[in-house]
Amino acid sequence: MSETPAPIRLVPLPGIPLIAEGDDLAALLLDAAGRAGVGLADGHLVVAQKIVSKAEGRVVRLADVEPSEEAKRIAAEDEKDPRHVEVVLRESVRVVRRGHRVLISETRHGFVCANAGVDLSNAPGEEQAVLLPVDPDASAERLRAALVARGAGPLGVIVTDTFGRPWREGLVDVAIGSAGLAPIEDWRGGRDLAGRELVVTATATADQLAAAAGLLMRKDAGLPAVWVEGHPLVGEGRLSDILRDPSTDLFR
Amino acid sequence: MSETPAPIRLVPLPGIPLIAEGDDLAALLLDAAGRAGVGLADGHLVVAQKIVSKAEGRVVRLADVEPSEEAKRIAAEDEKDPRHVEVVLRESVRVVRRGHRVLISETRHGFVCANAGVDLSNAPGEEQAVLLPVDPDASAERLRAALVARGAGPLGVIVTDTFGRPWREGLVDVAIGSAGLAPIEDWRGGRDLAGRELVVTATATADQLAAAAGLLMRKDAGLPAVWVEGHPLVGEGRLSDILRDPSTDLFR
Repeated sequence: MSETPAPIRLVPLPGIPLIAEGDDLAALLLDAAGRAGVGLADGHLVVAQKIVSKAEGRVVRLADVEPSEEAKRIAAEDEKDPRHVEVVLRESVRVVRRGHRVLISETRHGFVCANAGVDLSNAPGEEQAVLLPVDPDASAERLRAALVARGAGPLGVIVTDTFGRPWREGLVDVAIGSAGLAPIEDWRGGRDLAGRELVVTATATADQLAAAAGLLMRKDAGLPAVWVEGHPLVGEGRLSDILRDPSTDLFR
Repeated sequence: MSETPAPIRLVPLPGIPLIAEGDDLAALLLDAAGRAGVGLADGHLVVAQKIVSKAEGRVVRLADVEPSEEAKRIAAEDEKDPRHVEVVLRESVRVVRRGHRVLISETRHGFVCANAGVDLSNAPGEEQAVLLPVDPDASAERLRAALVARGAGPLGVIVTDTFGRPWREGLVDVAIGSAGLAPIEDWRGGRDLAGRELVVTATATADQLAAAAGLLMRKDAGLPAVWVEGHPLVGEGRLSDILRDPSTDLFR
């Protein structure tokens, strides 16, 4: 049982430029936080996967991709670019579903999402595929360490992407990597206000933070980072802990 | 293309008492908003399904429930209360998956979730099942109209519940009813900052708002209502519009 929580504030961090490989994200985020008047202490920094991937060089020029026969076949059926499909297949360990021109696969990390999280970036004359980070938890931890080394923190860092869901239209932002927080808060053994044992056993806090920040990452705003203050920094862990054990997953 | 958005504030509405059938939710929420110092104008009110269902009398005393043979069989296999299983089956149009003591069904509304959204409430000597509202969009619209009639608004109202997800552990808050907003924001035809056509076609805004509010509805806080200010009130629609057409759903 706890007191009424304080309000939470979601603060957009504006003015982050287009990112290229090797850019110093921590420095750019600290600058943006300064412009927004927040100190990156005692809160959660939510960062869109796109800028993390680009800073890490997780970008493939489509002109350099030789599509396999399988990629060509899928691309022809689904009216897609076979080079894009090829990159998606390389990032996937298996295709989970395919239909209605949508390819849902399981990524090497264990995420189940459309196109293995591979986005196309159609800069003129330079068509690129932006891949998910190799290890998004490690990306979050590196960014957190770099921020702390420059005086920020304590803070949690969450790297997010935009996923669809079964049964529901529309995309939501979800966490794909995290550092400095427990991605799941476990309430087992807890009691509610009336002293009854809690029915809800675990909340996916990292995903709730991702979705909250997603309200500000409007797709036309070019806003890849949000600072969340007022939500307590709780626990430790890696976002990959959130992935359901295949043996207990009813939707494999 | 738009300006940098303003910060968003999530404000807990404290002091809402335990709710019984016939309680005047609009009055209780206006009182709570007054205590929190917010006016319920130009924002979104997020309300947990539990208090909406209780105010509407969507409560069944387990002592009054006669379980069917099917409910008895499932309850024996899954070590559950057969009366609870019976209520779940009555609220379901089909069982989607069953295993590991979890029953995922499709509700009469079309939601796919554990136990058809039926929660047990174990007040001593009076075990109850709390059902989802019959028409959560209508519940949201009635609440919104009652608030506007007393001088609140303009506002959106979202009724939320806590759902699990395939592939990911932990629960998140999602919208099950809404009024006064477009539950999905469609970006088709839009352009990003560089003038490129947007890849993301639709954002499930109502679910992002539900998850954001869920950060404050911590399971031990007894907090069933949150006011969200700073997110623009956009569009019209019913939450049921978010349900994916079965003919295009790859996970039926």
